[in-house]
Amino acid sequence: MKDLLDAIVENNRHWTQYGNVATYIPELSKGNAHALGVYVYDVDGNEYSSGDYDVKFTIQSVSKIVSFMCALMDNNFEKLCTKISVAPTHDGFNSIVNLETKNSHKPLNPMINSGAIATISMVKGDTPEDKFNRILDFMKKITNNPNININHDVYHSEKNTGDRNRALAYFMKSTRIIGDDVEWILDVYFKLCSMEVTCKDIAYIGALLANDGVLPFNGERVTTKDICKIVKAVMTTCGMYDGSGEFAVSVGVPAKSGVGGGIVAVVPKKMGIGVVGPALDKKGNSIGGIQILKDLSNRLDLSIF
Amino acid sequence: MKDLLDAIVENNRHWTQYGNVATYIPELSKGNAHALGVYVYDVDGNEYSSGDYDVKFTIQSVSKIVSFMCALMDNNFEKLCTKISVAPTHDGFNSIVNLETKNSHKPLNPMINSGAIATISMVKGDTPEDKFNRILDFMKKITNNPNININHDVYHSEKNTGDRNRALAYFMKSTRIIGDDVEWILDVYFKLCSMEVTCKDIAYIGALLANDGVLPFNGERVTTKDICKIVKAVMTTCGMYDGSGEFAVSVGVPAKSGVGGGIVAVVPKKMGIGVVGPALDKKGNSIGGIQILKDLSNRLDLSIF
Amino acid sequence: MKDLLDAIVENNRHWTQYGNVATYIPELSKGNAHALGVYVYDVDGNEYSSGDYDVKFTIQSVSKIVSFMCALMDNNFEKLCTKISVAPTHDGFNSIVNLETKNSHKPLNPMINSGAIATISMVKGDTPEDKFNRILDFMKKITNNPNININHDVYHSEKNTGDRNRALAYFMKSTRIIGDDVEWILDVYFKLCSMEVTCKDIAYIGALLANDGVLPFNGERVTTKDICKIVKAVMTTCGMYDGSGEFAVSVGVPAKSGVGGGIVAVVPKKMGIGVVGPALDKKGNSIGGIQILKDLSNRLDLSIF
Amino acid sequence: MKDLLDAIVENNRHWTQYGNVATYIPELSKGNAHALGVYVYDVDGNEYSSGDYDVKFTIQSVSKIVSFMCALMDNNFEKLCTKISVAPTHDGFNSIVNLETKNSHKPLNPMINSGAIATISMVKGDTPEDKFNRILDFMKKITNNPNININHDVYHSEKNTGDRNRALAYFMKSTRIIGDDVEWILDVYFKLCSMEVTCKDIAYIGALLANDGVLPFNGERVTTKDICKIVKAVMTTCGMYDGSGEFAVSVGVPAKSGVGGGIVAVVPKKMGIGVVGPALDKKGNSIGGIQILKDLSNRLDLSIF
Repeated sequence: MKDLLDAIVENNRHWTQYGNVATYIPELSKGNAHALGVYVYDVDGNEYSSGDYDVKFTIQSVSKIVSFMCALMDNNFEKLCTKISVAPTHDGFNSIVNLETKNSHKPLNPMINSGAIATISMVKGDTPEDKFNRILDFMKKITNNPNININHDVYHSEKNTGDRNRALAYFMKSTRIIGDDVEWILDVYFKLCSMEVTCKDIAYIGALLANDGVLPFNGERVTTKDICKIVKAVMTTCGMYDGSGEFAVSVGVPAKSGVGGGIVAVVPKKMGIGVVGPALDKKGNSIGGIQILKDLSNRLDLSIF
Repeated sequence: MKDLLDAIVENNRHWTQYGNVATYIPELSKGNAHALGVYVYDVDGNEYSSGDYDVKFTIQSVSKIVSFMCALMDNNFEKLCTKISVAPTHDGFNSIVNLETKNSHKPLNPMINSGAIATISMVKGDTPEDKFNRILDFMKKITNNPNININHDVYHSEKNTGDRNRALAYFMKSTRIIGDDVEWILDVYFKLCSMEVTCKDIAYIGALLANDGVLPFNGERVTTKDICKIVKAVMTTCGMYDGSGEFAVSVGVPAKSGVGGGIVAVVPKKMGIGVVGPALDKKGNSIGGIQILKDLSNRLDLSIF
Repeated sequence: MKDLLDAIVENNRHWTQYGNVATYIPELSKGNAHALGVYVYDVDGNEYSSGDYDVKFTIQSVSKIVSFMCALMDNNFEKLCTKISVAPTHDGFNSIVNLETKNSHKPLNPMINSGAIATISMVKGDTPEDKFNRILDFMKKITNNPNININHDVYHSEKNTGDRNRALAYFMKSTRIIGDDVEWILDVYFKLCSMEVTCKDIAYIGALLANDGVLPFNGERVTTKDICKIVKAVMTTCGMYDGSGEFAVSVGVPAKSGVGGGIVAVVPKKMGIGVVGPALDKKGNSIGGIQILKDLSNRLDLSIF
Repeated sequence: MKDLLDAIVENNRHWTQYGNVATYIPELSKGNAHALGVYVYDVDGNEYSSGDYDVKFTIQSVSKIVSFMCALMDNNFEKLCTKISVAPTHDGFNSIVNLETKNSHKPLNPMINSGAIATISMVKGDTPEDKFNRILDFMKKITNNPNININHDVYHSEKNTGDRNRALAYFMKSTRIIGDDVEWILDVYFKLCSMEVTCKDIAYIGALLANDGVLPFNGERVTTKDICKIVKAVMTTCGMYDGSGEFAVSVGVPAKSGVGGGIVAVVPKKMGIGVVGPALDKKGNSIGGIQILKDLSNRLDLSIF
């Protein structure tokens, strides 16, 4: 496995030159465009890694699955669906069009920005600190990493330039999808996006989902099998933004990407895979990361289809 | 003329029952749904009125033409066009879709909410107070009414519930149509919408435009003929929101409506007409006010076509 | 006047190099990109011309106002409005989006392709020949030109490549805007677009509208003043496609353009103006023709605003 | 298994009263709204059925996966992708909007009408008969049913009322997605939709996909594992139209529905399931059929997530 990972990382490193580091959040543009790494954590607790697996990056949209898990635990699926649909979309991750044109005015799914903001509003917590800590604590627990924290430079950069997200949030307030305090819900959102992680951390999240809610490293059940199924289904249809359809064809496993360059992939009953590669394709997905997952899926026959 | 106005108001008063007072700003819902009045001010200084011509209402979107005049005086048309188009639209007055889908990301025209917010950002003034006073002073001058002021209840109601406008403004900030301080540009916008006026005041604005920039009551030129032509052209194609096409057919003069129930109409070279009727049709235009203007246009052959 | 026209044509001839002859109908691409001409016909019967005023071109969308007049005479405005709106639009002339997204599924206005096809379906005539001759005969009468006929090469070219128009027509059939025989309605549409005219012919159409329905050359009333007002109103808000707003500002008169390079402008109570210049801007309007109209409007103060 | 199927069908039969038989194709409205049946065919060749499993219905959009398989065999995935995307969409199955608004002008995926028409244009065959027989023969082979044929009443009904599909096809011709003969491609499309099948037939199609391209009843490989993976991936993200996201959550297997009331579901490595229930929900999916699949998935833990 280790040899396979090494070979795949090396074979795909050239891809990094065809992508671009996200620049719309100024601080993100400092990411290392040439980094490429992978971490595999299987449900039996075995761990394998290769390349720049220990480079730190901000989790960005990969955090949307953690928020979604928390929201599902704090509510239930039916209640969540009164505020957020689970419909895949061909529009981009920060699109606002459908909030106006769809009769429900609901965000299409929890994996795009509007949906993630609405998701956070449904997580338990009376103050921004409570809400953020609710999710951060869960994050620390499932990654077995008590040191996860936010990158303050990225957080401030996100906050200062997050006007598109503000537009999404105020629009949803105007249609009563989210409640009163837009700014503090956004603050939690920006903080969650700014959590600093490695491939290992997100591989652990993937392994939890692969293992149907039981932590592989200690056998503790932290969420239900049903919630894990919902999350994996939504990742499959919506997790790679408007590239979700292509990814299902070429890789064939539930996954979620972030503009920090991370992607978490889940192979049900088998493993979580974390990859990092800050050079992105035009849809905002790690260009090298997708190639690694494609090769891994082919070589190990990981596709669920 | 007075008899004609009296007859027209009476004949159309029954229309008020088919419309609804705007409710999306809670304070507006207190408007008198049955009020209906008209005021005519011609370029020779003659004045005629009928019905509830002295009822006070908030100017709302009629203020957009005053802001637009100020922005044209403080910049020039070409410069303004780098931020705002002058394209009529079939979408509603608070639509956000085109800010995303049009390649320019510019608001389509200065008569819809997004465009008016961008317009205000182009008016002179380093502070919100400066900007607001720049427009308010101009307003007082052209209406010959030093007592115009804002209705504080409506202003606070607009401000508290203006989330759709916030969404528009933050979206435009994210695409660099407007600059830094969204909240204070919005504050000016809400204040301008909350100015309390009567039919007479808006008829005076109309008469200034009809008279190509010269105040009928004292012969003072306050703006250029070219600016008045631009404003009247934009009112004709965009002033009645997505009802602009129908209004051009049925009335045939430049006009601008507001959800407070006011409409100002301009008969070039002849007169300004202010009507009020807070009961609105589905497009947000005064249902009785449009009927009055239709009858007046037919009886006096006012159409410019 | 003749001197003025000569000067304006010469001053603007260089614009023709910045535009492009329409190519989406192959036969149109043979048009002379450098031609530029103008013809003025006033309501007193005076005629002036300059430049390539006698070059022949296909009328294309300028025919939409002739079809619209016929449909208004054969029905009435209210009846026509059950099938076609009169709403200006920011979308392009061949857009299909709104047929799906608007609840009414009606074409937005009679000046865009979808609306013109629906307009033709409302003109009297039980066979395609009847319908086409109804409009052609009216056309011959109002241009005082019995020799108007279709350019068969362009007609066949339009018919062979008119798939976008077919899509519009079949969509409207599916929503019951138009009735059974899509192909023959389209055949009439393609024929009407292929009528060969000169500036003089379209100036005559403009003069009829300027003169409120009475032919200047013989005093015959051929349609009502009300119909002329409707047509001029719709031309003002919708006649120059998504350039209608800008044109209202810069020229300020009702007008209709065609991709053959013609534009007819109407100065109410005064004159019809026909211009030709097959080099088009990106919105499909004659780039030199618009400049001629802009200069003429400025020099003679023609704007209706 | 038989007992389980019987129980599930009976428990869900009441759902049929909440849906409606498709009426947009007149002939379809004659479908039996109360029918409900299921057929399971596993990769080991075992067969189970319950309810109205032998009722005949027209295959409608379930045929899209058969066309897609043929197109993948006759081309390759990359070539197919030059004409059709594999992007899930939140728009309805007959939406035309994206053909205009997406820069590629490609249909979003092969499971919606526009995409299926483009798919058929890529299947081998120089005449409509060749193309139709290419697909029909494959259909007969994989269902082991040489008697499959079209329902002529439905076919004529589709053809007479298929104007929305004509609009899609002509639009795609105008953007060069499909080639010359729109009417005969549509003819093949209407014929394919009109093939008469039972639950058993579509269960066989599902079992082939579950078995990665090998027919369970005779061990013959009829297509590649890769093609089966592509088809299952696209079914998962796009197969239930704009209900695909919800279905992935609640059932969790690749599936394709048709407005005739059939749904085929694929449980990879395990079985194909065919259900029928002509009463449809608002998205055009069998309302009872979805409930059966939901219960089966829960009871047998079939979800791939």
